[in-house]
Order: sequence, then structure tokens, then C-alpha cells
Amino acid sequence: MIIVMKTGASESQIREVIRRIEELGYQAHIIEGAQRTVIGAVGDERGKDRLQSLEVMPGVDTVVPILQPFKLASREVKGGKSIVRVGDLEIGGPAVVVMAGPCSVESEAQMLQTAQAVKAAGATVLRGGAFKPRTSPYAFQGLAEEGLKFLDAARAATGLKIITEVVNPMDVELVAAYADILQIGARNVQNFALLKRAGEVGKPVLLKRGMATTIKEFLMAAEYILSEGNYNVALCERGIRTFETSTRFTLDLSAVPVLNKLTHLPVIVDPSHGTGHWDYVAPMAKASVACGADGLLIEVHPTPETAQSDGLQSLKLTKFQQLMDELRPIALAVGRRL
Amino acid sequence: MIIVMKTGASESQIREVIRRIEELGYQAHIIEGAQRTVIGAVGDERGKDRLQSLEVMPGVDTVVPILQPFKLASREVKGGKSIVRVGDLEIGGPAVVVMAGPCSVESEAQMLQTAQAVKAAGATVLRGGAFKPRTSPYAFQGLAEEGLKFLDAARAATGLKIITEVVNPMDVELVAAYADILQIGARNVQNFALLKRAGEVGKPVLLKRGMATTIKEFLMAAEYILSEGNYNVALCERGIRTFETSTRFTLDLSAVPVLNKLTHLPVIVDPSHGTGHWDYVAPMAKASVACGADGLLIEVHPTPETAQSDGLQSLKLTKFQQLMDELRPIALAVGRRL
Amino acid sequence: MIIVMKTGASESQIREVIRRIEELGYQAHIIEGAQRTVIGAVGDERGKDRLQSLEVMPGVDTVVPILQPFKLASREVKGGKSIVRVGDLEIGGPAVVVMAGPCSVESEAQMLQTAQAVKAAGATVLRGGAFKPRTSPYAFQGLAEEGLKFLDAARAATGLKIITEVVNPMDVELVAAYADILQIGARNVQNFALLKRAGEVGKPVLLKRGMATTIKEFLMAAEYILSEGNYNVALCERGIRTFETSTRFTLDLSAVPVLNKLTHLPVIVDPSHGTGHWDYVAPMAKASVACGADGLLIEVHPTPETAQSDGLQSLKLTKFQQLMDELRPIALAVGRRL
Amino acid sequence: MIIVMKTGASESQIREVIRRIEELGYQAHIIEGAQRTVIGAVGDERGKDRLQSLEVMPGVDTVVPILQPFKLASREVKGGKSIVRVGDLEIGGPAVVVMAGPCSVESEAQMLQTAQAVKAAGATVLRGGAFKPRTSPYAFQGLAEEGLKFLDAARAATGLKIITEVVNPMDVELVAAYADILQIGARNVQNFALLKRAGEVGKPVLLKRGMATTIKEFLMAAEYILSEGNYNVALCERGIRTFETSTRFTLDLSAVPVLNKLTHLPVIVDPSHGTGHWDYVAPMAKASVACGADGLLIEVHPTPETAQSDGLQSLKLTKFQQLMDELRPIALAVGRRL
Repeated sequence: MIIVMKTGASESQIREVIRRIEELGYQAHIIEGAQRTVIGAVGDERGKDRLQSLEVMPGVDTVVPILQPFKLASREVKGGKSIVRVGDLEIGGPAVVVMAGPCSVESEAQMLQTAQAVKAAGATVLRGGAFKPRTSPYAFQGLAEEGLKFLDAARAATGLKIITEVVNPMDVELVAAYADILQIGARNVQNFALLKRAGEVGKPVLLKRGMATTIKEFLMAAEYILSEGNYNVALCERGIRTFETSTRFTLDLSAVPVLNKLTHLPVIVDPSHGTGHWDYVAPMAKASVACGADGLLIEVHPTPETAQSDGLQSLKLTKFQQLMDELRPIALAVGRRL
Repeated sequence: MIIVMKTGASESQIREVIRRIEELGYQAHIIEGAQRTVIGAVGDERGKDRLQSLEVMPGVDTVVPILQPFKLASREVKGGKSIVRVGDLEIGGPAVVVMAGPCSVESEAQMLQTAQAVKAAGATVLRGGAFKPRTSPYAFQGLAEEGLKFLDAARAATGLKIITEVVNPMDVELVAAYADILQIGARNVQNFALLKRAGEVGKPVLLKRGMATTIKEFLMAAEYILSEGNYNVALCERGIRTFETSTRFTLDLSAVPVLNKLTHLPVIVDPSHGTGHWDYVAPMAKASVACGADGLLIEVHPTPETAQSDGLQSLKLTKFQQLMDELRPIALAVGRRL
Repeated sequence: MIIVMKTGASESQIREVIRRIEELGYQAHIIEGAQRTVIGAVGDERGKDRLQSLEVMPGVDTVVPILQPFKLASREVKGGKSIVRVGDLEIGGPAVVVMAGPCSVESEAQMLQTAQAVKAAGATVLRGGAFKPRTSPYAFQGLAEEGLKFLDAARAATGLKIITEVVNPMDVELVAAYADILQIGARNVQNFALLKRAGEVGKPVLLKRGMATTIKEFLMAAEYILSEGNYNVALCERGIRTFETSTRFTLDLSAVPVLNKLTHLPVIVDPSHGTGHWDYVAPMAKASVACGADGLLIEVHPTPETAQSDGLQSLKLTKFQQLMDELRPIALAVGRRL
Repeated sequence: MIIVMKTGASESQIREVIRRIEELGYQAHIIEGAQRTVIGAVGDERGKDRLQSLEVMPGVDTVVPILQPFKLASREVKGGKSIVRVGDLEIGGPAVVVMAGPCSVESEAQMLQTAQAVKAAGATVLRGGAFKPRTSPYAFQGLAEEGLKFLDAARAATGLKIITEVVNPMDVELVAAYADILQIGARNVQNFALLKRAGEVGKPVLLKRGMATTIKEFLMAAEYILSEGNYNVALCERGIRTFETSTRFTLDLSAVPVLNKLTHLPVIVDPSHGTGHWDYVAPMAKASVACGADGLLIEVHPTPETAQSDGLQSLKLTKFQQLMDELRPIALAVGRRL
């Protein structure tokens, strides 16, 4: 930490800060500047909130952290890229992984039809929500375990891996019994009880960024899962909240290269939630692959106009097929494949 | 809902939209404009996601909802202001309710000292976290049930009511056994499993706005609790996330009059989290009362520089006393009292 | 500046950074931490972009500035509060200054009627736009010099001071010939050519914060005017852009105490633009005074429903009178008067 | 416009709104809903602020505009894509146009060296600022006309087209005498005096989106130029302001497909300002081409660590060459070429 003293801080205020730094187990280094004195506190600062509290001491202007607050997720700890293995499927390897399917699991027929179509188009993971976090208590809340069984049937029929969301720590075991990948949604990115349970259960986790989560906070949320010993975590950018209303959220694609610099964990992009409109999904899916995403999460529905949720941002099966065809040359152009 | 057709939408596209509106159980009213056709779908639209899905139909430009999506929280349903009763304490009545105490419960002595001081200054509710949602897994996570017991002891000694946070649906019963008011924090505002449990347990709930939650979404979150039959809900504005970094969050005080217009539920403001700096707490507490808040949630700590969390935004006991003295004439100026 | 090296930066990278720091005329101080090396560059860093460029050197992680980038606007330079004098009127003194009037000057009768009413209610400055910056080229663009003459007539009739906006550097002289205070609007906060002209002409200036301007950038914009030798600058918070849509902007009232800490310049609040709805103006005006604003800028119109612009956020004359009566006890409660 | 009445609006309030709609020259159509009455005002609503003012009438809840506020920039007016011609260069045609060069023009040698290098790499336009809008009055403000001459010399030596920024309406003629394309920067996107002058002078204009400008406001700003009869306008996405601080701005790449849907004007992306870090420029440049951008604006500097401005986000000449090589297969993959 760097402790910046106020202009005109007194000798005794500076001495008091040094005393407190040393009391907390750090070494103090003083730099006397032209206008201000700056004090470095040397030691491992991560997880040490108390240094931050020096900011309330008289004469202190600000306290600036130097180290990233995350450890296990950091490139400083693990230089190379991690691969999350889901059976024989690799997330973070040379192939861009495409996960596709409806927002909500609605029926067995819907899941089978979708699964066969997305598999034929080249997807390797089937998505579909059985437990739905909905803004309104009056909206469709999902089929729960029945939905998980429909996913299971679609897996049995196609060999696709299954990703589905879990929203309640109490359901983690149940969902993990069906799913190949647990999805933790944007609204639960700082639901720490849920993150810990997902860490304990050991299944691969796709963690979505919250709509107001900074990239550092996002990595801290992943750190909750990693610190329980579960290293099979992939991160998912899905749009942040901004003033712009012509899209549902603002897809922060810069997060892809930023995450690729800061962390070894694979990075997936969800252009469906990120834009909220089906006709922006294809261009943003292409952009995602072009800027280095390891995978895509895309909403696909046989009949979007009758969907229980998110119809507006779902691709029809033929549109999805077309998108996959268009993605291939872009993946090749950046040294990947679908 | 109002369905706005694209410029140049064909007759048959319009007919198809009308057919679908009627199929979903609504009546269609057509307005032919100079450039565009607009179709009104008449009927109760709340909880009806499917009308929104008309936006994917050919020829449709946008679908505009007319009714607010919340019912039980709405002023349209209940014109007057609701009072949340916590024993003999009224939230939403003529008195501005002040809830004060440390971010984290750290020890019995800390809680007793704080409770006596804030009571002497005029607070009627003691706050303190036993289950702490922390951004970092390496930060202090709270004392759990031991912390609840310290709160209980402070209540016994002072007669103050107790408010404390619950973060896991599995803990709701335990926390409700100790607390007078359950606090649901900003990071859990759309943790629907937690909201439902808080609705079922029936205790008064203070629901905090999330850092990227619109006011409408905030009221929909409250609606989850209300729709379980628990009407004892107070709302808390605590700052939203914006580009400005000189404060920890941007306290959205306009939310107070907006909420007072849209809902009958009482509105509390938390200037401590909202600003993140102790020296901005007093001015923003005064502003909150001036614009119509029903109460304040303020972090107070005997020695902020040693606090386990949020020391930077905590008032010392003497500063809190001084603030209470300064708040009284402002409360009177707006026809309230402390 | 503090230069933070990457974990694992080499000896020679560190040496190269030190060499460059010294080449730019600073002294280098090295702190070797447990994981990283940190280098302090001592000297006056303001206006020195080049130190920031060290961030591109190999082995450098980030460069952290220590001093505030503004000088003349800073409390570090001038400890006390500045008073902007407009003839016999003081902005920043014990009296809260209320500036009121329509968004656009529409006619002489409108200005006279409004001027008399706001003066009777206790306002001391009349606002009204003759040059209007409008989002649409098809919207009413203002009466230009004719509007300035109507303002002049209203001043002659009432003795109120006149504030009006200038949007083009070429018009500064003309507007300054009529106005007592030049208003620079939110969209021009970083129109540096305009700021410099306003600095040269020497008239008191009310500078509005832009909708995406951080408080530091806002003070840097003021610094442009001050550095031309014009110290008669008051700052105006008028709402920032956020994701919330129930108000037109999000009035960042915390900016008032933040500015009062960082700068000696007086701080005005515009709750009309800040909220965009007339029924939120009164509560936010009260909150502004409660948290320490030196003045208010309020849109008032005899018949808002016929206004050429901003009718939705304008108070009727009687509502304004009522607001002024309600503001008085709040001003007294914080040791001020209207 | 659609006027939504409040629940419980009276007959006479509805009649009064209808009367006012007709008085303003529109036809009123009434839809009586289950809970609310909705009134359509039929007629061309663009540029008609007064309908919006109905929102202040008793009984009115909200007024919802139906038409886009822009005309000339709209796809509704011109279905196909426009091509902006700069001599023999086409912006908006099959070739992706790359504009590259330093942030600031610093010397003739710097411009010549950069021009030759970016031309060799495949760029067709040279950028460089002679008039610099700088946040701080103490920062380098540009070489003014001398800088324009250096650009002219670089054009003579290489045949590249020249783009440079103009910040003051008074300088438009001077800058237009040297530049092939006038750049209007983010801070001036709503500097309407400057927009009008740029419209009058008739030269091709690259208009940058402001950091808090919605896409609709951006198109309204372009409309100012178009409505002066200058149709040679290209739009530039360069990042918006959000809460995320790991990039300088948040590059809103979704704006590319959104603009491609709403307007016929070509769309350029500036990944240098959009990210603020040179190592994120290449991935975001690739993403821009992949999602349909018509061109790129990229900061390139022979020695970024000595740059007068924006060194941190500038590519070295060799890195730029490498990026161009990597962009070619992506352009081909989306049916374009460099």
C-alpha cells in the first residue's frame, strides 16, 4: 500500500501513521515529495482491510493499493492459460466452445429439437434454464427438477454437454447431479454463499459478470470458488449497465483482452444478454471471437415469438446455423477453430 | 402494451400482430399515424412477458409497456403511505428513524459501547453485521451466530431494536430469531430465493437497492417479498454505481421523491455506503431528511481506524452525536421529528 | 507520481525507469516490496503528461498520480471559501443565492411576469436562455440578441441580476455586454475555446458540470477559466448520466460536500435539469441547501405546458413561491439564510 | 406521440388533453384500457417539443415518442448505405478504411516517419492533432497552424489523406483549408455552433460520439451537420464512460450494429481512445472489423514513451504493421478488404 499524506500533514501525524503501519506488521518507507509525503507499507497486503483504514487517520489523504486483490485467479500466480475440462471437452483450448439453447427449458420436445439443431450446427454444449431468476415474481419461474430431466434427455439423445443455472445454495447438489457445467448468473455474482457451495461441489462453473461488477470484483468473485479448491472456473462477460438504452446492456468486449491479461481462466461471451436483440447477436458473436474469447453462450429457440422468456434476444435455429458458418473463418483468422 | 410497427410495415404484418394479440387474450386497437401504425393491446399486461415477445414479429419496431410492472408495492394499489411497525417503533410515521452502529459486529464490548452511545444520541435501532458479504474471500466474514448474540445483549441492555443482515436463504430462520428487522443487502437485491424466504418468515425487512438496480427493478424485488404476504418492507437507497470515483458510490437521493411518488413503502437512506467517506456522511444525512427520507442507516464505530470493515465511512461516536443534533432542526423544517 | 513495476520486473527495467525519471527532471525513490518494486518520482507533477507515459515502458505496471491535477481551484492553494461578487450580490457568502426563470427567453411579457414573481418570492438572479443548445436541429434555438434585450428589460424593471448561457466563443463579448453572469452549460464544460474566452472577458461565470464529467475534470475545466485570470467562477452540479431512467439525469448531490472539500469555489445546484420533473424539484432543492450548496438554479415558467423547452421540469410561479417559503427554515437549520 | 394517462384520470382531464393535442395540430385517438386510458397524437412529431410538454397536464402520466427524432440520418429516409467520398477514397464501401497516426502533431520529422510507416502498412488516411482539446490547461495544447503544415507536408510526401481535429468554430475555415477530413471530437459532439460551421463548410466530417452521448443523441448531432446540406459525415464510436476503470473508457462495440441498423452513415471505431491501453488496441480493432465497422482510427507513434499526449494508448510502428497483417483475414472473413 502507498499512503499519501495531505499537503501540510504534520511531523507527528506522519510518525503516527508509521507507528500504525508497523503495528499491523508492515515496514514503512518514506518518500518526502515537493508538496507531500508518501509512505510505502511493505508486506503482502491482500486480504488486509486494515491498511485501508489508515485513510481515517489525521493527515492522511488517500491509501493506494499496489497489489491486485486476487491471487489464485491471477496471471501473477499462474502464467499460462488454464483449460477447464468438462469430460472430453476443453474450454480455453484451441477450439472456441459454443454453448447454445433456449433461455428457459419449456418442454422435452423443445429441448430435443433445439439440441439436435445446435449440435448439427457445431455447438458442443446445450444451455437451458430450469431455475430462472426473474425480475418479476409474476413471470415464469422455470420448471425446476422437471426441466433438469428434459436437459438430461437431450444430452442422452445428442451427447452434448449440459449447462444450466443454479440460484440457491440449497439447490447446488441437485443441479450438480444433472449438469455438466453449473452456471452462476449475473445477479448472483456476489452471492457468496452460492459461490462457496459451487466451490465445494467441484463441478465446472461458468461465472457470469454482474451488471455493475468491475473486472477486479469479478475476479474476486471467481476467487471465492477457487479458494474452495475448485479450479474449473470459466468467466462470462454478458454486458454491463450503462446509460445507453438501444441495447439491453452494454457488452463490454474490452473485458476479453483485459481478462486475458489479468487471469489464466477462460473467458466466454454471451452476446444474447449483452445486446438483448437477436439482430445484434451475430455481429457481436463474431467480434467476441475476433478479440480472443474462448467461447460463446448464445440463446437459440425454435420459435422465439412464443418463448417463455427472452424471445427478443433468441436466434431461430436457421439463423444460428448461419452464424456458426460465419464464425468459422473468423476463428481461423485468429488462429482458433470452432 | 403499445406495439409500434416499423415505417413501411405491410398490411399482412399488421394483421398477423393483431391475430397474435388476440390469441394472447388481449384486444387490439389500431392507430394509423402519418408514418407508422401503432397498435394498442388492451388488458392487464403485468406478468405477461409474452406480449413483449411480439417485438420479434416481422414489421414490429418496438413494444412499449404502459403499466408499471409492480402491483402490491404501487401507489396505484394503496394511495397512502404504509407504516412498518417494529414492536412499538414506526418506520414511515412522523418520526425519522435513525439506525446506527458498526458495519461488523466485532465484540460484545464494542456493541454495548456503541449501543449506549447511539441510544443517548437519539437512535432507536442498532445495526451490526454478523454475516458479512465481502468482496474478497480473504476478508473478515463476520462472527455469525456469536455476533447475533452480541446484538441480543446490546438490545437487552438498551432497549434498541436490532437490524442485521442475512445473506443466505438457509440462515433466514436463525437470523429472524434474533433480529427485529432483517436487512437484505445491495448484492442480494435480486437473490430471489432469499427474498422469498424473507417474505415467508414475516419479519420486517429492510431491502437495499442494488448498485445497478433501477427504481422499477427495486420495486419488483420488494414485490417478491410482498407477494409472499409480508407487507413489512422498507426500502433503502445506498448509492448506485456510476463513473464518478471521488465517492464510493453515487448516492441517488432523487430516488427518495421518486419512490415516494411510486410506492407507499417507507424509504430509508444509507449515506455511509452511499458516499464511502465519513466526512460526507453528515451533509448527505441532512440532505436525505430534507428531501423526505423516513429514516437513516448510519455506520458508527468507537474506533474507526481499527474497524474490521468500512472504517473509512464510519462516524466516531462524538461525530454521530453532533450529527443527530444537527439533524433535528432539519427534520422540524420538513414537518418531521427525529 | 508513483511508478508500480510488474511482479518480476527485471533489474535493468527498473534501472531504465529510474534513468527516464531523472531525465524528465525528477528524483527517483525506490521501495522494494515483498512482491513488487515501487518507484516514487519526486517533483511537481502537475501538467506533466510525460511521467504518465512511463506506463508504456517495459516492466511498468501502472503509474499513480499523487497530486491533484488542478492548482488555482484547489483548497491546497486557497484554504478558505471564495466569494464571487456580482455587483452587490455575493455567491458563496452566508446567503443561499436563488437564480430562477424560464429555460428559454420567449417574450418580453414572459420575462417581466416571471422576473416580478421570482423577485417577490425572494430570488435575486433571473435566468433565461437566449442562445439555446438543443439536441435536435429542428427544436427552438432561442431568440439570440432579442432575448438578451428582454432579459435586460426585466433587469431594469426589477433590479434582479441576469444569468444567461453562452455557447459560442464568438458570442462571448455580446452576451457579456448584457449578462451579469455568464452561464457555460453542461455540453460545453470541455469546450476549451469557450472556457478561455470566458476567462479573458472577466465576467462572473457559472460553469455547469457535464453529464459525464468527473469532479476532477470539472475542476480542471474551471482551472481553464481561472488560469486566464478570471477568479469569479461558481460551479454548478446539474445531474450526471447513469443507468437510471426515472429521472432525466442523476443529481449527484454528494458532489456538493466533495467540492466543498476540494475547492474554494462556490457550489450551486440545478435540481430542474438534475431531475427533469417539476415534482422532484422542491425536495431536491431542499436537499441541496441541507448538504451545503451556496445557491440554486431553478426553472420557473408562468405556463409550463406552453413552454418552448423544458416545460416538464419547470415550476409554476405559485409552486416556486411555496418552495422558497419551505427553503427558509432549512437554510436556517444549516446556519444560512435565503 | 402516445400520451399515457394516470390510473384514475378524470373525464375532464382526458378531454383537456385531447383539446390541447388538437390545438397543436394533431389528431387524437383514444384507447381505453383496463386500468388506464392512452391517447395517440397522430401527425409528424419530430422537432415538436410541445407535445412532450403535455406531460405537465393534470392526469397525464407520461408521453412516449413513437418516431425517431432524426430524419436525414435515418435508414427510414435512405434505405441503403451511404459512401463518404474523400477524393478517390471511399468510406463506407467494401474496403475497411484505416486512419492512423499520432495523437498530437509534434514535428515534421515525426509526421513524415509515421506517414511513411502507416502507408507501407496499408493505411490510407493520416491522423494527427494540431489543435488539441486537453483536460488540463497546463498540458500541451498543440502546434496549431504549424502542425497543419506538417500534416500537409506528410500528405505531399505520401499521398495519404489527412484527418485532423477542429475545436473552435472560428478555426473551421483554416483547418478545412488543410484537412481532407475534419474531425469533431467527443467533447464537442454537442457543440452545436461547431457542428453548424462544419456543415456549412462542406468538407467530409468524422464525428466522434461523446462519452455520455446516447446513440440517438449522436445521430441528432450528425443531423445538425446534415441539415446544413453536408452529407459527407462518418460516425466514430470511441468509448463511453462507465463504472469500469480497467480501461480508459468502455468501447461500445454494439453501437456498430445498432448504427448500421438505424443510419446509412458509415461507422468508424477508435479502439485507441476506447481502451486507453496500447495492448488492448489490436484485439478491439479486430473485433471492430468483425462486427461490421467501415473503418478504424488508430493512434500510432514512433516512440510512444516520448509522446506529448496519449503515449499509453499508441502503437509502435512495428506493432501497427503487425496489426494490419492480422486484420486482413478478418476483413475477408466478413466479406470486406483492407
